[in-house]
Amino acid sequence: MGRRRISILGVTGSIGASTVSVIEARGLDRFDVVAVSGNSNIASLAERARRLGAEVAVTADPARLAELRAALTGSGVEATAGPAALIEAAGRPADWMMSAIVGAAGLAPTLAAARAGTTVALANKECLVAAGDLFLAEMARSGAQLLPVDSEHNALFQLTHGTRAVPIERLILTASGGPFRNFTRAEMARVTVAQAVAHPNWSMGTRISIDSATMFNKALEMIEAWHLFPIAPEQIEVLVHPQSIVHAMIGYSDGSILAHLGPPDMRVAIGHALAWPQRCELPVDRLDFARLSRLEFQAPDPERFPALDLARAAMARGGVAPCVMNAAREVALDAFIGGDVGFLDMAPLVGEAMARLDGLPAARDLDDIYMADAQARRVGRELVKRYAA
Amino acid sequence: MGRRRISILGVTGSIGASTVSVIEARGLDRFDVVAVSGNSNIASLAERARRLGAEVAVTADPARLAELRAALTGSGVEATAGPAALIEAAGRPADWMMSAIVGAAGLAPTLAAARAGTTVALANKECLVAAGDLFLAEMARSGAQLLPVDSEHNALFQLTHGTRAVPIERLILTASGGPFRNFTRAEMARVTVAQAVAHPNWSMGTRISIDSATMFNKALEMIEAWHLFPIAPEQIEVLVHPQSIVHAMIGYSDGSILAHLGPPDMRVAIGHALAWPQRCELPVDRLDFARLSRLEFQAPDPERFPALDLARAAMARGGVAPCVMNAAREVALDAFIGGDVGFLDMAPLVGEAMARLDGLPAARDLDDIYMADAQARRVGRELVKRYAA
Repeated sequence: MGRRRISILGVTGSIGASTVSVIEARGLDRFDVVAVSGNSNIASLAERARRLGAEVAVTADPARLAELRAALTGSGVEATAGPAALIEAAGRPADWMMSAIVGAAGLAPTLAAARAGTTVALANKECLVAAGDLFLAEMARSGAQLLPVDSEHNALFQLTHGTRAVPIERLILTASGGPFRNFTRAEMARVTVAQAVAHPNWSMGTRISIDSATMFNKALEMIEAWHLFPIAPEQIEVLVHPQSIVHAMIGYSDGSILAHLGPPDMRVAIGHALAWPQRCELPVDRLDFARLSRLEFQAPDPERFPALDLARAAMARGGVAPCVMNAAREVALDAFIGGDVGFLDMAPLVGEAMARLDGLPAARDLDDIYMADAQARRVGRELVKRYAA
Repeated sequence: MGRRRISILGVTGSIGASTVSVIEARGLDRFDVVAVSGNSNIASLAERARRLGAEVAVTADPARLAELRAALTGSGVEATAGPAALIEAAGRPADWMMSAIVGAAGLAPTLAAARAGTTVALANKECLVAAGDLFLAEMARSGAQLLPVDSEHNALFQLTHGTRAVPIERLILTASGGPFRNFTRAEMARVTVAQAVAHPNWSMGTRISIDSATMFNKALEMIEAWHLFPIAPEQIEVLVHPQSIVHAMIGYSDGSILAHLGPPDMRVAIGHALAWPQRCELPVDRLDFARLSRLEFQAPDPERFPALDLARAAMARGGVAPCVMNAAREVALDAFIGGDVGFLDMAPLVGEAMARLDGLPAARDLDDIYMADAQARRVGRELVKRYAA
């Protein structure tokens, strides 16, 4: 195989950093790096663009163009800035693209890559959660391959080998259960942001840690799985597994369960997406089962983790309901971090926003998605005021 | 797909019974049953041949032909008997054959099916353990598909989807550890046959239960796995897993581990082999992870389970060494059941037989295999006398 043309959107984030590390472990001489993008961390963006010898580096912030240009002086890397430049760079011909921009900002550039027929390694959640129908229709139209990079969905993809030919009976996403796995509801009502960010297995940012503690991250993953695999919402199970070693499982009608296990290291999923359909040697820890000694499982309590039922309601409703759930979750999360609402207020607040926006029509394009997202945020903020009062 | 022509060798045994049960669950109208075979249980053989509407029923025992004919009167099922008749029946054109005859008697008829290009669902261990090189060469020559039915190897086959395209880094066979998992060597030295047959998870016959207690069954499975998958002996690990829920795992160079889990029910593997490459609905228990609660793992102790190292030595030696190990194991097992040797004498006895027959040449045909088997049994019996003295 010749050198592969690859792009990395969100190169300055943690998935971006792991992607660079995997690419360097594979050998930079195997790749021609087309585009890299970042947000406001210009120093890191320029450093990675130079290291990778990228054709173009894009900052999402138009006001930072001069700064980026200065940081890239003499490197031969083109500097561009702003949403339109990001879409242009993402649409440049490439064999493979890592889509690791966080949030709704990842939608348009990832769609541009999908339209160009580029294989998309997907770490951005919004493409599936908020715009799954649109995004998958574009992928199908261009024939582009989607490779999920979220560890759970990558696990499921590995187990199915990417084929949809064999019907699935059950799809099991594991959840660490977060730091409040064994808390009572009364205890959960009083937890602080500092307690919520102390995740037992993965080292993550504040927002993701809190989403893990509420299991809203798992709620989003249920919706992603529903889009990625040929299954009905009621076939998706969530299983609490404190060790985070089993990432996901698939059950078939003959009673077989296939499971993916691995160290809690994002490089495994990224490396898989980069090497697929082959596999590559990665410098990650190998599991030592005798040392692990035991893997534990328990059913999640819907009273303490109501986010899971919200995901089921969003899938049952379809259309923009998952987009509304996701945007209202963002608002509730901000309100919890800001001290305006309690830990157990987040899910009811999201549920109420979903109920209020139940009548929104399905999205025909990204603008409809942005509109649903904006309405959900507006309603969410109104609700925060009421909850905070 | 039209009706599939299938045969079941060893229809009267426990794998045979499970195969009949799976076929009936699938619907007898999907199949034309060609041949069924049994040994001395003529009543069961005739009853199953009638139930399945087989073309021919074969008893391995030539002296029972008249009895079988009488039992099949008016059924329209042809009756035949003896080794040559068994080979003839196994070689009749069929799409799929279950090879579930126990022991070396399964070799020649399974080879006949392999030569005829029939897909072989393999439950007989000797085809791979004693005659793996010959058997696989015949399968490759005719292009026949091999589908392992042993739960561990079926699990591995499911995980690889039958492809050899992706290199395997580790192959992990789980073992229940048997009833003496936590015994000291001193305690193991004194165990009785009655204690050894009390297997915690699977209900099995005396011989298989004792093989499980010594882990000789796992030693044979290591050799089978070595023949079935593209791996070196040192890449095969055995892991004690008392719950017997995880059947096997495969590790790749990117740190991913894929595992197969299922209820301890042979119908899962048989149903998989029957439906492959699709899957079929089976009336087996579904795993309930919240109820299972925990899966435990520990490294096997080579001092207490020396059979595993004997398998490694047999693979390193190659040729007929695995055949010798297997035959000597049979003799040691008989001697333990007969009260002539102790539980901990079995492995050293087998090891000594292997050392004495280290110079035997590789097998060119089945006769060479039979000869190695006979020599190992002779040497084994000599050693039993010495150990018993």
